[in-house]
Amino acid sequence: MSRVDGRAKNDQLREIKITRNFTKYAEGSVLIEAGDTKVICNATVEDSVPYFLRGKGKGWLTAEYSMLPRATQDRNIREAAKGKLSGRTQEIKRLIGRALRSVIDLDKLGERTIWIDCDVIQADGGTRTASITGAFVALIDALSYMIEKDMIKKLPVKDFVAAVSVGIVKDELLLDLCYGEDSNAHVDMNLVMTGKGEIIEIQGTGEENPFSKSNMFKLVDLAEKGIKELIECQKKALGEKVELFKEV
Amino acid sequence: MSRVDGRAKNDQLREIKITRNFTKYAEGSVLIEAGDTKVICNATVEDSVPYFLRGKGKGWLTAEYSMLPRATQDRNIREAAKGKLSGRTQEIKRLIGRALRSVIDLDKLGERTIWIDCDVIQADGGTRTASITGAFVALIDALSYMIEKDMIKKLPVKDFVAAVSVGIVKDELLLDLCYGEDSNAHVDMNLVMTGKGEIIEIQGTGEENPFSKSNMFKLVDLAEKGIKELIECQKKALGEKVELFKEV
Amino acid sequence: MSRVDGRAKNDQLREIKITRNFTKYAEGSVLIEAGDTKVICNATVEDSVPYFLRGKGKGWLTAEYSMLPRATQDRNIREAAKGKLSGRTQEIKRLIGRALRSVIDLDKLGERTIWIDCDVIQADGGTRTASITGAFVALIDALSYMIEKDMIKKLPVKDFVAAVSVGIVKDELLLDLCYGEDSNAHVDMNLVMTGKGEIIEIQGTGEENPFSKSNMFKLVDLAEKGIKELIECQKKALGEKVELFKEV
Amino acid sequence: MSRVDGRAKNDQLREIKITRNFTKYAEGSVLIEAGDTKVICNATVEDSVPYFLRGKGKGWLTAEYSMLPRATQDRNIREAAKGKLSGRTQEIKRLIGRALRSVIDLDKLGERTIWIDCDVIQADGGTRTASITGAFVALIDALSYMIEKDMIKKLPVKDFVAAVSVGIVKDELLLDLCYGEDSNAHVDMNLVMTGKGEIIEIQGTGEENPFSKSNMFKLVDLAEKGIKELIECQKKALGEKVELFKEV
Amino acid sequence: MSRVDGRAKNDQLREIKITRNFTKYAEGSVLIEAGDTKVICNATVEDSVPYFLRGKGKGWLTAEYSMLPRATQDRNIREAAKGKLSGRTQEIKRLIGRALRSVIDLDKLGERTIWIDCDVIQADGGTRTASITGAFVALIDALSYMIEKDMIKKLPVKDFVAAVSVGIVKDELLLDLCYGEDSNAHVDMNLVMTGKGEIIEIQGTGEENPFSKSNMFKLVDLAEKGIKELIECQKKALGEKVELFKEV
Amino acid sequence: MSRVDGRAKNDQLREIKITRNFTKYAEGSVLIEAGDTKVICNATVEDSVPYFLRGKGKGWLTAEYSMLPRATQDRNIREAAKGKLSGRTQEIKRLIGRALRSVIDLDKLGERTIWIDCDVIQADGGTRTASITGAFVALIDALSYMIEKDMIKKLPVKDFVAAVSVGIVKDELLLDLCYGEDSNAHVDMNLVMTGKGEIIEIQGTGEENPFSKSNMFKLVDLAEKGIKELIECQKKALGEKVELFKEV
Repeated sequence: MSRVDGRAKNDQLREIKITRNFTKYAEGSVLIEAGDTKVICNATVEDSVPYFLRGKGKGWLTAEYSMLPRATQDRNIREAAKGKLSGRTQEIKRLIGRALRSVIDLDKLGERTIWIDCDVIQADGGTRTASITGAFVALIDALSYMIEKDMIKKLPVKDFVAAVSVGIVKDELLLDLCYGEDSNAHVDMNLVMTGKGEIIEIQGTGEENPFSKSNMFKLVDLAEKGIKELIECQKKALGEKVELFKEV
Repeated sequence: MSRVDGRAKNDQLREIKITRNFTKYAEGSVLIEAGDTKVICNATVEDSVPYFLRGKGKGWLTAEYSMLPRATQDRNIREAAKGKLSGRTQEIKRLIGRALRSVIDLDKLGERTIWIDCDVIQADGGTRTASITGAFVALIDALSYMIEKDMIKKLPVKDFVAAVSVGIVKDELLLDLCYGEDSNAHVDMNLVMTGKGEIIEIQGTGEENPFSKSNMFKLVDLAEKGIKELIECQKKALGEKVELFKEV
Repeated sequence: MSRVDGRAKNDQLREIKITRNFTKYAEGSVLIEAGDTKVICNATVEDSVPYFLRGKGKGWLTAEYSMLPRATQDRNIREAAKGKLSGRTQEIKRLIGRALRSVIDLDKLGERTIWIDCDVIQADGGTRTASITGAFVALIDALSYMIEKDMIKKLPVKDFVAAVSVGIVKDELLLDLCYGEDSNAHVDMNLVMTGKGEIIEIQGTGEENPFSKSNMFKLVDLAEKGIKELIECQKKALGEKVELFKEV
Repeated sequence: MSRVDGRAKNDQLREIKITRNFTKYAEGSVLIEAGDTKVICNATVEDSVPYFLRGKGKGWLTAEYSMLPRATQDRNIREAAKGKLSGRTQEIKRLIGRALRSVIDLDKLGERTIWIDCDVIQADGGTRTASITGAFVALIDALSYMIEKDMIKKLPVKDFVAAVSVGIVKDELLLDLCYGEDSNAHVDMNLVMTGKGEIIEIQGTGEENPFSKSNMFKLVDLAEKGIKELIECQKKALGEKVELFKEV
Repeated sequence: MSRVDGRAKNDQLREIKITRNFTKYAEGSVLIEAGDTKVICNATVEDSVPYFLRGKGKGWLTAEYSMLPRATQDRNIREAAKGKLSGRTQEIKRLIGRALRSVIDLDKLGERTIWIDCDVIQADGGTRTASITGAFVALIDALSYMIEKDMIKKLPVKDFVAAVSVGIVKDELLLDLCYGEDSNAHVDMNLVMTGKGEIIEIQGTGEENPFSKSNMFKLVDLAEKGIKELIECQKKALGEKVELFKEV
Repeated sequence: MSRVDGRAKNDQLREIKITRNFTKYAEGSVLIEAGDTKVICNATVEDSVPYFLRGKGKGWLTAEYSMLPRATQDRNIREAAKGKLSGRTQEIKRLIGRALRSVIDLDKLGERTIWIDCDVIQADGGTRTASITGAFVALIDALSYMIEKDMIKKLPVKDFVAAVSVGIVKDELLLDLCYGEDSNAHVDMNLVMTGKGEIIEIQGTGEENPFSKSNMFKLVDLAEKGIKELIECQKKALGEKVELFKEV
């Protein structure tokens, strides 16, 4: 069986393309493309921390997520026009923030905030996981900028982190669902894992069809395979900056 | 090792108390107590559906969640006063809605909406999972009211559903964390499962400490044990109404 | 003539039940029941004052009021979901605040704020007056906590305060209207009075039927009778804590 | 003792000036001046009713109230800029609406809404009561316009209505408090009464100093005297339109 | 051809009336009438500056603009009730602010803010330009108050400023359009100019009918003529205060 | 003198690059680059019209504008997070809408709305004018899609439209200001013109330095030169679709 977007295999990622320095102002700026899903991930270094951290000598990382109104098949109303963030947006921005904070040593940042802005310009499924995978690369560029500017001594990062979706569509267990698959999935699961293969976050839902433990375990294995490959893509995109991880 | 709230065993639930008909107006009204966590779960039957479902002959179920300002150790600002729902509240209300919709046959409701209101009056960890477990009982009472009023013929419910938290605290795998455990947990996971032992939702995060696949699998087993017991509590609370499930 | 809820007399209060320590975190926590009206009144002591009082060495007391969506016959939309407080809610929270501030000596509190949260879990008329009557008891518990913690020396309270509704229904002057009476009342009046029988607040409206001065005066007398009885209920609920008033 | 604004007597109103046709578009447009308090009261006839009245063949009347930012000694932040109405504004707009609805027969309006807009351009105490007194005149002009346009046959008004404040300042009972008096008042009371001397609304508060029943009764008498005079001012301002009341 | 409001000539302003000290609290308070357009322009001196200017020793000027709901033929919903400013209001408040800041030397104000509040009580076209012309006079009164109170030494104003609208209606180039003309205009342009005849702001739009450069230039000349006359009106209204400009 | 971004001449545009079909879902999708300014312009065809046009058989066009938080040197707070559009955003979205509506025949669209979404991903001055120039091309693609789908017969467009900024920096009159010039400009003007050289919109401000009529006229000429060149860029980008204009 071949996939709806032409992929040959169920355990196959879409083509991943990571473009660094995509825009010119952000300390880290990445365009990540996973098939037709395209997300701009910008990392900004700001010289202050939220109120609850002031005077504690440690830093913070927070994420925001948005989609262009026409990133999707039908136009969505702009959240700025509606005057509030949807529940979906809030869930995703919190997820991205947790995922990246899990591998960064905030105590080493000084009283600084890193803002991660993930803006989806084209959506074909998996925008939240692509955001995490791309934002990690932007984060490394922003931290490397901080090293250059003598704000920090070395990379305050414990491990790589990437994310992928898996799911069950018509009894097939699939890796990295495109929208055509996602909208027909009985089970939809997102995994965030580290370079060491540990789990940072698992979110799986079978709203229409509850799923068995054994299928859940198989899906986790499938995600692990995909995340390993995504981390290879991150390393390739980072090029010589991977050296910075050596002293971590 | 004994638990911080005095429980003897790691795989032990807190004492569960389910009081039906807690308030007098709602079609289903339940007070669920899990140790010191107390949640009022009201189910309302409304004779209309949201815009996107009008004219399709099917029903809807939606949930809301809130905490009294002083349900917690420190007072929280009232969301109505702030003028918006927090990201946490949005996540939880969406989770409760998905959990209950997963076992109900919306096509059988007619063009009606069931509103689930979960209001936490005292919080000691696990408020979202207690909300799901209690709301299921309120939902059954509301559906049973609909049968009495000839709105529906029989219970449009596929299975029982309940939820519980599990986590890792100081290398111990614990079932049903109280707040004192939750706030020290390295891993925090919520599971929603059916009476048949299938998974509806899994949400696990190891923001501070990534966790291994093998620990994740153990936590799922632990949750499964707890959910089985919770479903027994639901059945006991429902008493003779359990008979309604026979023709399902 | 007997009342719609079975009371024998026009000048009869509903059964009043005041449960202290209803929840475990608040410094004062009271459930007040007046017939089928049930309100949780929590008092919180906070170590700061609003901006306009900073550095002046005195304290503040402020109140909030809310109803659970299904506290009433029909479900109300949650104000947190609408994103703003209704005019009715604002009126009531201001009324409760004024009523309690009128008997407390704010200069004696130090730079602290007492938050009064009144959350109606079941409404059968008279929720605002029950809130005041119950909140006064919670306030005394919170102040007594402050004495225990050496924040203040003695009770900074000038007098008891309680509130009740009165009204005219089909030419009968009634005390403590339940919802079935209130919704048919030609005149609806709320009185807040002290233990000494002085008036703190009077709010009366005859939107549908203007009323004479002489009827107004009779209603005030009726309310005075009810408030005296309510203050007895408060004293009984407070038990030995009534001793604290001796040195006031 | 003379009053702070130079009035000779405690039971004396400030000079009242009612200018009709103050702006050119509104069906009724009045500038009312009570001493230095100046309020523009516009009445608009709109050919629709709120959602909850559609198809019932009756009309509605609703009021709004606002102050120019610099109507007061210090500039207030504009509510449109803050994005929400204060509790005080909501209370006043509801009071004005109730006061005017109490004397109008909504069933006779047809499915139309009368909007009352009270905009304070200069405030020196008593803005809410001046709004009611002035708005009643604007309302009569708007209804008279409806008679001319054959929308209604005769004036659907049961009686005159006006409002005034009374209070206790340094043990003196005063009628029609100016700001200098109001800000020092121990008791502050607003009365709305009809031409027949019946009470539509009474709102009195002694936040700082509770007051006796006997003082309250004296204040009501004082207000009654003032309202009688205000209704004479309304009649004088209406001129020959007073004839319209004959057939009421 | 005569104009729709009876003016004899295309290059004729409506009658301009400027009343100073219109309300009693504001440091500068002007009612400007341009034909049937009437705007209250209040200037407030406040002893603080916005966050971005603190500690820089300079001042700020900011403007707000609003219309009474019934300033127009049909009633507009109050922006305070809608909870947000319309795009039109925001454009106009920004325009008024820029216009007045262009002639004031903010460095000479000390750390103070001047608030300009323009409230339209009757609108017949040209409310934004009348606001600027009237607010300038209120501004001079507020600055003159600051001189009296020794806050500043002399008038920190570089030049007069006034504004007018011009447009093309049925091929006629018109000065100072009333609403009846404005609503039929093919081209609508607003000019803000100084006493020296220099341009501070030009905003012209031909949404329905693009216009030629040569017509645009003619409109600018027409506006220049009108603004010269408006500045004469300002001088006449200011009377002896014009002397303050001598030392500028 | 050479320009700060290296351009040789004062009347020289930055390099313009127009990429059509930039994203895959929108009926028209353009990336316009003017030097370092980059804007995604998407045009969406929607089968409905706003409330005020229903049943009138004509169409509508509306525009929205936003900047990614890190499109600029410093990060801007996301408007969706703030919950409201800034005044600047509102001005620009209204300008883009007016500019495009001025050349389109809305009567020919049927009851459809064209949404124009301009999202700035990198800002270096002139984002509003680049939005108009790019959005026009996206609009033509969307209209051409409507022709293909038989929604309309031929291009309902009267003329080309493009926009550019001009300004005075240190006494030099410059075309197409980059941010480094714009932030130092004494005069800043935006022109929107048609292919026939007619003006649709002129907005010029000399907040810091008023400017003479003669300089204004020179700036208009300069803008006209730039807009002619921009329209050539549009034509080149549209390729054979320019043929569609033949039958207009």
